[in-house]
Amino acid sequence: MTARVRSSRRVHAGSILALDLDDVEEPGGVLALREVVRHPGSVAVLPVHDDGSVVLIRQYRHPAGELLWELPAGRLEPGEDPAAAARRELEEEAGLASAAVEPLAAFFTTPGFCDEYLHLFRATSLTPVPPRPEADERIEARRFTLAELDQLRREGGLRDAKTLLALLFEQRRAGQAR
Amino acid sequence: MTARVRSSRRVHAGSILALDLDDVEEPGGVLALREVVRHPGSVAVLPVHDDGSVVLIRQYRHPAGELLWELPAGRLEPGEDPAAAARRELEEEAGLASAAVEPLAAFFTTPGFCDEYLHLFRATSLTPVPPRPEADERIEARRFTLAELDQLRREGGLRDAKTLLALLFEQRRAGQAR
Repeated sequence: MTARVRSSRRVHAGSILALDLDDVEEPGGVLALREVVRHPGSVAVLPVHDDGSVVLIRQYRHPAGELLWELPAGRLEPGEDPAAAARRELEEEAGLASAAVEPLAAFFTTPGFCDEYLHLFRATSLTPVPPRPEADERIEARRFTLAELDQLRREGGLRDAKTLLALLFEQRRAGQAR
Repeated sequence: MTARVRSSRRVHAGSILALDLDDVEEPGGVLALREVVRHPGSVAVLPVHDDGSVVLIRQYRHPAGELLWELPAGRLEPGEDPAAAARRELEEEAGLASAAVEPLAAFFTTPGFCDEYLHLFRATSLTPVPPRPEADERIEARRFTLAELDQLRREGGLRDAKTLLALLFEQRRAGQAR
């Protein structure tokens, strides 16, 4: 049960995304012109040390106009396995290798107008490796206890959806483990 | 501490979003051409009945190519107060009025390439009103216990970021209340 695309016009084909205007007949008979941001999909990973502390990175995000604390994350490369991509981003952005990456969830980030699908992972058995940021990345990594991170959240210092979601998953897990 | 925009070109100005190509000098001296999806901002609301059950809606999402279970949600209108927008979407999409709307969180949905900022609310003291879907919306609303919703999540039937986040917030709250 998917829409019938009556016509589609690509108004932008860029380096990280494309934008289509789709004239569609959706299930239920709705006729609509939909603006759709096309994205290759993403991965994000919560790195958890043996003592339960976690690692976030901070970088400037031009769309937000501010520095954001976030999970290490990035785009899927064509054909790339999501768990492998999560390991790659973890090494590149946080300077950590993981011997154990497990899936937490997978979801559309904002399905009203974008097809980005994000695979969220939890990484443990961490060992340091040299970080390899991309040319246009300036990244700070920091280790937080869950209590510190929850404090940051309550102060409004965690303003990224995937990162909030990962924190709540980890808090639930830690609560169940007590 | 924000980027200096050296030049900006709007490649699309549509009904729900715009797309800019910004040539920027970011803090730290990074020079980059950033593709930025401009969005007016959003609200989403978790409606919680007195018995602890919650209401989700299901609608076809063309970018996802499938029907998704989601919180009632929508775009902010220019100058609109987020809590008022949440009440409006709750009435329009779920057919529920709320006497008590409280903020849960606020976040960027996907800050790598989009400025959409989403205000998430929890609504209680619910009473039925006639739903008022928009012309291009076909919406089904359903009431779930938290256990049913967590089962749906574990089966992969909850694939929307804001909805997963709201479920985890509500589970935490319910756990603390026990």
